[in-house]
Amino acid sequence: MTEEPRGWVTTVDVIPPTLNDNTADVDRLLNTLKTRLKTRLIEIDLSLVLEIPRLIRESAWSANCILFKDRDQWRLIDIRGKGDFRPIAGLAVDLGTSRVVLRLVDLATGSHIGERAFDNPQIAVGPDVLTRIHYAATSGGIENLNALILDGLNREIGELCGVAGISPRNIHIMTLAGNTTMTHLFMGLDPRWIIREPYIPVVNRPGLYRSSELGIDLHPRARVLIFPNVGSYFGGDLISGILYSGLNTSEETALLVDVGTNAEVVVGNRHWLMACAGAAGPALEGGVTRMGMMAGPGVIDTVVIDSKTLEFQLGTIENKPPRGICGSGLIDLAAQLFIFGMVDFRGRLQAAKCGSRYIEKDGMRHIVVVPEGEGAHGKPLYISQADLDSLIRSKAAMYTILETITETVGLRLKDIEKFYVAGTFGSFIKPRSAISIGMLPDLPIERYIPLGNSSLEGATRVLTSPDVVDDIDGIRDRITYMELNVNQEFMNRFSAAKFLPHTEKSLFPSVQIK
Amino acid sequence: MTEEPRGWVTTVDVIPPTLNDNTADVDRLLNTLKTRLKTRLIEIDLSLVLEIPRLIRESAWSANCILFKDRDQWRLIDIRGKGDFRPIAGLAVDLGTSRVVLRLVDLATGSHIGERAFDNPQIAVGPDVLTRIHYAATSGGIENLNALILDGLNREIGELCGVAGISPRNIHIMTLAGNTTMTHLFMGLDPRWIIREPYIPVVNRPGLYRSSELGIDLHPRARVLIFPNVGSYFGGDLISGILYSGLNTSEETALLVDVGTNAEVVVGNRHWLMACAGAAGPALEGGVTRMGMMAGPGVIDTVVIDSKTLEFQLGTIENKPPRGICGSGLIDLAAQLFIFGMVDFRGRLQAAKCGSRYIEKDGMRHIVVVPEGEGAHGKPLYISQADLDSLIRSKAAMYTILETITETVGLRLKDIEKFYVAGTFGSFIKPRSAISIGMLPDLPIERYIPLGNSSLEGATRVLTSPDVVDDIDGIRDRITYMELNVNQEFMNRFSAAKFLPHTEKSLFPSVQIK
Repeated sequence: MTEEPRGWVTTVDVIPPTLNDNTADVDRLLNTLKTRLKTRLIEIDLSLVLEIPRLIRESAWSANCILFKDRDQWRLIDIRGKGDFRPIAGLAVDLGTSRVVLRLVDLATGSHIGERAFDNPQIAVGPDVLTRIHYAATSGGIENLNALILDGLNREIGELCGVAGISPRNIHIMTLAGNTTMTHLFMGLDPRWIIREPYIPVVNRPGLYRSSELGIDLHPRARVLIFPNVGSYFGGDLISGILYSGLNTSEETALLVDVGTNAEVVVGNRHWLMACAGAAGPALEGGVTRMGMMAGPGVIDTVVIDSKTLEFQLGTIENKPPRGICGSGLIDLAAQLFIFGMVDFRGRLQAAKCGSRYIEKDGMRHIVVVPEGEGAHGKPLYISQADLDSLIRSKAAMYTILETITETVGLRLKDIEKFYVAGTFGSFIKPRSAISIGMLPDLPIERYIPLGNSSLEGATRVLTSPDVVDDIDGIRDRITYMELNVNQEFMNRFSAAKFLPHTEKSLFPSVQIK
Repeated sequence: MTEEPRGWVTTVDVIPPTLNDNTADVDRLLNTLKTRLKTRLIEIDLSLVLEIPRLIRESAWSANCILFKDRDQWRLIDIRGKGDFRPIAGLAVDLGTSRVVLRLVDLATGSHIGERAFDNPQIAVGPDVLTRIHYAATSGGIENLNALILDGLNREIGELCGVAGISPRNIHIMTLAGNTTMTHLFMGLDPRWIIREPYIPVVNRPGLYRSSELGIDLHPRARVLIFPNVGSYFGGDLISGILYSGLNTSEETALLVDVGTNAEVVVGNRHWLMACAGAAGPALEGGVTRMGMMAGPGVIDTVVIDSKTLEFQLGTIENKPPRGICGSGLIDLAAQLFIFGMVDFRGRLQAAKCGSRYIEKDGMRHIVVVPEGEGAHGKPLYISQADLDSLIRSKAAMYTILETITETVGLRLKDIEKFYVAGTFGSFIKPRSAISIGMLPDLPIERYIPLGNSSLEGATRVLTSPDVVDDIDGIRDRITYMELNVNQEFMNRFSAAKFLPHTEKSLFPSVQIK
């Protein structure tokens, strides 16, 4: 009885009633749980109250209790007899604008028992947040968008459960992290005010709902925790990422950047958290966004130029013949071109240094990454000066955002003790290359920590570690969100960052031209 | 903004969002309410979250909020624009084994806007708790009993609302007080363990449910507060009665007795509460119960014997010709017979004193209350010696229970500063008569306070006075329930109480034979 519960499943032995102790069945069970959990209130649904007298007697006053907590409020979701070995599962959802990732977790052991990703079915309506918000304003738009994601989730949850050999009714807790707009559309909320001044969401802290209220087919009493947002441009996916990184509990000051459709940045430690998002107006036009090209088999993600032969050594996804280049490949390429002098500090291709790989086409400089006959379809692959210019604007925007937020809190980028890079695209970036072009600051490489899908990982953490659930609102409430004002100072920083690696070379001592 | 809310409806003016204060709509409203209510958490259903952005803007950031609270947990049930004058109602329910009483209250003003009573439709299954519990054990029994009361309630709520000119959807809060078994059957809970050792209910503190969860047709987000019980034999109707009496907040020690199907007693003050119920085994066989005869037009409820002529002056309900006698009439009759020597201190009819009203029939003494030709159907009305003996056992049981609980807490009956008499039957008892036969202790008459339907009144109080809602669990938790052990001491007290007014005459100094 003194054992502390480790997960959301807690075994209790209830003292059976006697003539001298005639507390009711439900109160008896809840009192035992309250003592164990050191709480005063435990919510319980009527449908479970109905089952308890039979269940607790069949199980000889000993049972596995499935619980969940949100903002200090515990809920008893289900109880299981000791001989009942049906799975008890949780589902973590990363609800992205483009991709949705599901992860199934055994709540009793914390082990992962399945994972599945699928394209957000709302892509049929529009590829990005903005088109979907505009569509939502049309008649039946919200309902259609809501149905698209719910139907998709229910279908894919069914598939995932099928592979794992469990029923969706075995899922008792679901955690969902997504950006503010995706979260609104999941809940069926009108997103119109997100993009209209003064840019406010319907809700910052959605909290906990029953799956049935939301229209998700899990256990009928399953609870769904929806991660809160800080505002229209700093969503639950980032709160989840911060939770996963541990930024909020660390004494050291760290920075987390999520490079996805936008660049969202948070810097801080256990005492304070400052955040901003890179959706910051015309200076970033075509900015960070453009780097996020889709990855897939045959896409070049690594570029190394041989220092002796100057040959291009290309790595592709799944080692398929090259058919394109993704963001991390492009950063590698730009870094290598710069180090070998094939582009100058302004990012301009240098015909003399590029040799046979240099061509002019339609009046514009190009570099041949894959010569004719060597690629997937025999076609050559070029990168134009325009592509490089665009990359340089992106990297300059990224560096400017990082520099701005850091200096706003009175720090220098070199003071950052840990630098977490989150997001699907972010995970593939090689910090060495990103430093070489001045996209990321010139920190010791070991300070860079890729987080992978930190949104999914944070949502998973809640399923396996009850003690972190209280941190979610704590993170949200402690974040100071700063609007990125594209003022003269910002533009000055941005202009200085549009060189390779930077106008101020002393900021990048490790970057040496060969 | 500093005005304290008086009822469950609170008007708030929300500061509209700006670029410098972009808290979301729902959080903005809830933060305003949290400040006002001095609370940290307010629960809100998804269906209301969906409506808030439109409602709050249409109403220019000012709204009437309908709230409810249970155990420190506030819930926002609905919001109304300032120009929305639809009624906002609450419903108090006294769920009796025999009768159900509904009262409709305007939540904004606290005024009563309708009342309606009907027979508990479960009477079709059985008249008392025990038959219904046995029936519940048959196949489909619980479901049938549950459907009977739900259908009855929904039908009668519809009728009540029709008369009041409102829709059941205008009802946002319902409070229900009933005995433990009735409460179980209302919730659809299996009552079998209530009558099986160790006699425990399914739940002591049912708490708050959505009307839809319970199957009551009100506003879909309406909350239903079900009064808690102390055990199988001390139900929510009594907790509600205690709340209404104010016993739990008074410095003086008071006693509350609810004389209905059983006699339930609670004694105490703001510091402690001790309770017992009169379902206490063979000594009370045919005990308190028998007195509770049904009242109705033409039923004798007052008996006075003229001290000069010795004529019986009979009062009947609605002044109709006499056709029977109810409990309070019988107590009057016995008191008058005793005072005028027509029965002796053992309760035996005295032929010499009764004169022409004395007859023997079927070998048993009788007294003619209504002579032939004077009653409703011309028939005479007799009371037999057996009826009087039964009444004396009842009054002895009542007095013994009162004496036992009072002495258990170290007091004498004369120490009781206020004596509340609750329940339909209890309200009609004349304390002077009840004292004369030794049913109630010989206290100054002004200490006796009839409470009427205190169960309904307590349930109503919660609808009109938010500050009392926290007292409900407080009362429940502070009650020490004592089992009435029918031991030798109890039997000795009972034997002593089987005389008129009592073996120990000094306990009843005010009772004088004429």
